[in-house]
Amino acid sequence: MTSVADMLDVAYAEARKGLSEGGIPIGAALFDADGVLLGSGHNRRVQDDDPSVHAETDAFRNAGRQRDYRSTVMVTTLSPCWYCSGLVRQFNIGAVIVGESRTFTGGHEWLADLGVKVTVVDDERCVSMMSEFIEAHPELWNEDIGR
Amino acid sequence: MTSVADMLDVAYAEARKGLSEGGIPIGAALFDADGVLLGSGHNRRVQDDDPSVHAETDAFRNAGRQRDYRSTVMVTTLSPCWYCSGLVRQFNIGAVIVGESRTFTGGHEWLADLGVKVTVVDDERCVSMMSEFIEAHPELWNEDIGR
Repeated sequence: MTSVADMLDVAYAEARKGLSEGGIPIGAALFDADGVLLGSGHNRRVQDDDPSVHAETDAFRNAGRQRDYRSTVMVTTLSPCWYCSGLVRQFNIGAVIVGESRTFTGGHEWLADLGVKVTVVDDERCVSMMSEFIEAHPELWNEDIGR
Repeated sequence: MTSVADMLDVAYAEARKGLSEGGIPIGAALFDADGVLLGSGHNRRVQDDDPSVHAETDAFRNAGRQRDYRSTVMVTTLSPCWYCSGLVRQFNIGAVIVGESRTFTGGHEWLADLGVKVTVVDDERCVSMMSEFIEAHPELWNEDIGR
């Protein structure tokens, strides 16, 4: 099995890649039940000028068409927004690992109430990466969450 | 002002286009407060082999980066699934027009409870288009909604 820390590392590396591209540093990855990486991705609002590509939707896309998501795990550096939480609900993704929910809280508690196995790591790297980005680029961040 | 029927026609034309491409016939369009089309699109799971492109997310993408969605209207041929309902909630899209919710019911009532102005047209063209597709391609349809 791949550990929670190892899975979060993949999402974190995606977020750092996004940051190095000038984008919003949120990364995500989808793993199967055996901990095999199906796909990973990061927010591409700035890079592609595309508001529909959040980290989780990018990882989901890059995992390709899967017939069943119940045993998959979505790992994300930040609490999934409602758009991404809706993705998890609709496709019955079985588990979500959240790097941190201090800088933003989306729908991860709603998902837990619906039976999704949710783990909040409260990872310091994720908190500081996002805090620094929000402080430096508040307008981009607010745009990304529809504020 | 553009009428509800005129706006739904745009979404319906997108769905028909998707059908003609061999895809799942769901279309959507995003309009501004004056009824000006910002972007339209359709489900592209089959065409692009991309599970992340639902009609509403395609219309949202094609509308480009908007600073505020509160006065926009999302028109879709079918009740928005949880993924697309989450999109509406996160970006505070003010109104949703639903062609029909007989063949599938997603989160439009949840959105109405949250204050989104929801109109269900119950359009016969949309019902028959979707019914016929589901009967002919049940496996594609179930894949698209994570069943």
